[in-house]
Amino acid sequence: MYLVGIDLGGTKIAASLAGEDGGLLATRQCPTPPGSDFAPVLGACVRLVEALFREAGLPQAQLGAVGLSCPGPLDLRAGRIIQVATAGWQDVPVRQLFQQALGVPVYLENDANAAAYAEAVAGAGRGCASVVYFTVSTGVGGGIVLDGKVLDGAHGSAAELGHITVDPQGPACPCGSRGCVQLYSSGTSIARRARQALAAGARSCLEQAPQVDARAVENGVRAGDPLCREIWQDAMYRLGTAAGILNQVLDPDLFVFGGGVSNAWDLMEAPILEGARAYSYAKNAHLIRVDKASLGSLAGTTGAVLLARDLL
Amino acid sequence: MYLVGIDLGGTKIAASLAGEDGGLLATRQCPTPPGSDFAPVLGACVRLVEALFREAGLPQAQLGAVGLSCPGPLDLRAGRIIQVATAGWQDVPVRQLFQQALGVPVYLENDANAAAYAEAVAGAGRGCASVVYFTVSTGVGGGIVLDGKVLDGAHGSAAELGHITVDPQGPACPCGSRGCVQLYSSGTSIARRARQALAAGARSCLEQAPQVDARAVENGVRAGDPLCREIWQDAMYRLGTAAGILNQVLDPDLFVFGGGVSNAWDLMEAPILEGARAYSYAKNAHLIRVDKASLGSLAGTTGAVLLARDLL
Repeated sequence: MYLVGIDLGGTKIAASLAGEDGGLLATRQCPTPPGSDFAPVLGACVRLVEALFREAGLPQAQLGAVGLSCPGPLDLRAGRIIQVATAGWQDVPVRQLFQQALGVPVYLENDANAAAYAEAVAGAGRGCASVVYFTVSTGVGGGIVLDGKVLDGAHGSAAELGHITVDPQGPACPCGSRGCVQLYSSGTSIARRARQALAAGARSCLEQAPQVDARAVENGVRAGDPLCREIWQDAMYRLGTAAGILNQVLDPDLFVFGGGVSNAWDLMEAPILEGARAYSYAKNAHLIRVDKASLGSLAGTTGAVLLARDLL
Repeated sequence: MYLVGIDLGGTKIAASLAGEDGGLLATRQCPTPPGSDFAPVLGACVRLVEALFREAGLPQAQLGAVGLSCPGPLDLRAGRIIQVATAGWQDVPVRQLFQQALGVPVYLENDANAAAYAEAVAGAGRGCASVVYFTVSTGVGGGIVLDGKVLDGAHGSAAELGHITVDPQGPACPCGSRGCVQLYSSGTSIARRARQALAAGARSCLEQAPQVDARAVENGVRAGDPLCREIWQDAMYRLGTAAGILNQVLDPDLFVFGGGVSNAWDLMEAPILEGARAYSYAKNAHLIRVDKASLGSLAGTTGAVLLARDLL
């Protein structure tokens, strides 16, 4: 038996073929067909699966189960996409569609939870019973793995880690809450805060940057620019504040940080730990462990494969 | 086979006898022998167990397992009390001591987690897979039950719910963090804030109260006193803020509130829900469910009995 994990994104689709143990054998990807019609997207996924088996010289009849990592919000119980705003998909019964198209059981999970599961089982958290995973890129998301299981919650809404309040008096968030950590620590927010500071007249090497994005701020930190440093430290300290709150609630073995921004892990670890320790029991602060995600862009398909394995 | 649950407190000890299904048959209690020597405490517990069997006309040889609910901090893996400051106990290998004295397996759990387990399985949360339990009395504590299991955490420090930060810029907490919800919402904190307001010259019916405690503030709210109302609403709204943050993390079926202050549940429900909804996803806010604990003073021994049952 073989497994397939599909990482369905708004701009690209990746699929990995794996053995029964979950070890990846091959990965392929393609652009996501544009438009709100889901049929071409399903077709592209089916072709990726066919190509993986063909190129591996394996009969597709040996496909045992498929894991599907998908942006949300999803209705996990019903196996449906409620909405993927970036792609325009709405109310798609994805589990049923993939089961019909591929003829095997399908495990649907949201993308951040699937990546968390991958990092907890096969990545930086390997060997840990409980892992909290933050993905820090355009937004901040995450997943929680406790006792080796993804925490979905009573309504599939657990681990909305980007929308943990780190300042109850902070600015309103589009999610309806206030002072969510995503408003300070996402790549988008880091860039926005830098642009706001420049517009308010702050001096910085960013004035010469062709584009003021999180990467430019990171470069500014490396060049010793005070404004970049201030924005970056605050972003990471607040991410640490959220981790500290989570430590009081979950007391996990490990916090793992992935996503594009986390490529600058050498600049993140210290301020994240400082924030996490400041908002935890002093007596437990030394027990907090943080690490960089280790699976990179394969986290999505790896998590999907491991979830498919759980179906067998 | 019969089970016993012991609720070991700094001022009193309670013990319940139960059938194999966990249903309580009888409960007895006695004052906790004072002093830092644990031997008299163990002796008092053993006599309670003997009395329970004797009065029920049952042979103690049919005792199958004991659950022990204890204040902390505890080392759950080692089965030890690290310290119970109010009683003066320090570094006591309680699991081993009770196993030797009673000749059966002993399950040790901290008191807030045991009460949470009781409320989740046999109390207000009966039928729910996941329950977050807050105890609001002198302090604020709590426990988390997920998929019918107590969440202990990697180091036995999960669910420190009184020390969730609801204001990162708030006052320092003795725990080492800042702006912990306990600083606003415990009975002690409600009373302290009222006394501070009076000392600062605020006018209130509390000036006539024989003692300014949380109960007096509650009575002031019922009498329409504006200062009492302001302090009370803030305390409960902040408790709701913590619940909102927990909802983003855990998405539980139910939040349950116990402890002495929660006897005023009719004055708590609305501001707690308001705070919880304000700090959750707007789309999920209507799914948040809160309720009053239903087991009262029997939560401790009930939880201990149910944990003992899990040992069989």
